This record gives sequence, C-alpha cells and structure tokens, in this order.
Amino acid sequence: MSEKIILGIDPGTQVTGYGIIVCKGNSFHALDYGCIRPPRNALLSDRYFIIFESLAELFKTYTPAEVAIETPIIAKNAQSALKLGCAQGVAIIQAKKHKVQIFGYSPTQIKCAITGTGKASKTQLQGAVARFLHLAKLPQPQDASDALACALCHAHSSLSLLFSKLVSREI
Amino acid sequence: MSEKIILGIDPGTQVTGYGIIVCKGNSFHALDYGCIRPPRNALLSDRYFIIFESLAELFKTYTPAEVAIETPIIAKNAQSALKLGCAQGVAIIQAKKHKVQIFGYSPTQIKCAITGTGKASKTQLQGAVARFLHLAKLPQPQDASDALACALCHAHSSLSLLFSKLVSREI
Repeated sequence: MSEKIILGIDPGTQVTGYGIIVCKGNSFHALDYGCIRPPRNALLSDRYFIIFESLAELFKTYTPAEVAIETPIIAKNAQSALKLGCAQGVAIIQAKKHKVQIFGYSPTQIKCAITGTGKASKTQLQGAVARFLHLAKLPQPQDASDALACALCHAHSSLSLLFSKLVSREI
Repeated sequence: MSEKIILGIDPGTQVTGYGIIVCKGNSFHALDYGCIRPPRNALLSDRYFIIFESLAELFKTYTPAEVAIETPIIAKNAQSALKLGCAQGVAIIQAKKHKVQIFGYSPTQIKCAITGTGKASKTQLQGAVARFLHLAKLPQPQDASDALACALCHAHSSLSLLFSKLVSREI
C-alpha cells in the first residue's frame, strides 16, 4: 500500500506549528512535529524569513507530497489578520516552490474531522491527535498539535469522498 | 552624487502595483511602473506565486537598494485582511531573498508625504506623483501610481530627518 507524507502547518508570526505525518491506508503516524519561533524582538520581515527558511528545511528533510494549512476565517482585528496573512503567504510560497498541492482548512473543519464536533476543546483535540497517531502522550506544544491535526484532517479528506467534496479546499 | 533605486510595491491578491524610481539628491525619476495581475480564476496559491516570480524579475532587472511597501492598517473584513497579508508576505519574502531593507508606509503616511495632506483624493495623489517624477501624464493604472507614491514617500523619508524619525518604519 502506497504511503503519503503530509505536512501540516499552523502559521503564525510568533509561533508557526508544523506536523509531518505519513499515511498508509487508514493508518497514520507522526514523523516529526514542533514549532518555529522567530525571536520576538526581530524585524517582522526577518521573522517571516526565518519561517520561510525553516519550512524549506522541513521540505528538504521530509519531501511531503501535500501541504495542509490551517486558515482561520476570522481574526482578533485587521492588524492581526494582516500579520497572520503574511505568515500564511510565506508558507504558501515555500510550498509552491516545492511544487506541491496546498489545501486550506478552518479550525472548525479540523476539529470536526478529528473529534466529530466543531466545539471540541484544545485538550480534546490534542487527545484525538494522540490517539490517531498512537502517541504515548499529548503532542506539545499546542501549535505543533494543531499542525498535526490539520495534516490529519487533510489525510481524512483523502479517505472520505463526502468529506473531500464538502470540505477539502485547494488553495 | 550617488543614486539610489527604490522599488515601491502596493501588494494585492488581484492587482499588485509596482513602481521603480531612481533618486539622485532631491531629484527623482521613474524607471518603470505597472501592475501584476494574476488570472482571477487561478488558485490563490498560484496567484501568490505569480506575484512572487514577477517581483523576482523586477529585482533582477533593476536591483533596487531598498523596498517600500504600502501596508494598510485596516481592511474591509478579516478575510480580505488575510488575503492582503498573504500578498504582503510574498513581497516581503522576495525582498528578503534579495537582502534589501524593507520599509512599510500606510496609505495616509504616503498621501501626507506626497501631497501634504492625508485626505488627498486618488487623482490629487496621481497628480503629485506625476509632478515629482516629471511625467507628461498621470501614471496609470491606479495601483502602479500608488506604488510609485510609496517609493517616493520612502525617498522623502531619506531626505527629511524629522519625517524619517516620525514615520519611516523598517519592517
């Protein structure tokens, strides 16, 4: 049975979570997960470039076939939406440079796919991610767990035609 | 007297304006200006990549020393702010790849620098840009003119210590 590697990304200016999973049929396991944390006192452009270069390393190491990005539809305010957008744009460009398809999922879609409810708590989501990936403990930090959840959500959409048609959105 | 080339960018998902000016003392002229218009029916990620690659061409052709980006502080809604942020992020990453300093100016700061009032109309701003750059007619399209205005605003900040201290913001 063929394997597929998916890179999940939860972009953010302060913390960008990433999670790499490998899917074989309907079994999944995590290859790597963690966070990119550019220095808070650095220029914004330097922070974005650190995210860009760090993602390049992940592409080089794991050569994912597809990328799933958490794409919130709302934000606290316009300024934070603009910054979040910048981080998303950085992730998208790095993925495009590597010629992989990119899919976007909202936080609610991810929760629905992984826990069966859009109202799951952060801890419930972490628990579900741990179960799907056979992890001995809850994946930490939060943003890395969110990125794994995003990758799992995309993997789920490849297995479910209905979910794929309704939710999966190539960006 | 040394010359400096500045690339002004007005990023947008549908239209990204650019304007390249050369500054020699307090005299300016335009080397090039125009718009990048990715196909509207293309995937968002493809549109961002077209912007990214088109900006790369401009860097290759004109080797600007500094980049000035129009960075609105408000947006119609969170969704448009996120998209605008993505386009900004793309421009920032291309500039970082070319190791140039990047400065951000709000539309009001640009209007103030070029026309003396933050409430100038679009046409007044175009008229001022045409005068500064000794253009025979109003620079078109609008987004290209805005990018030229952004580059001029940054050039102005290099000439005025006060303006530079108060307004110029490296990003």
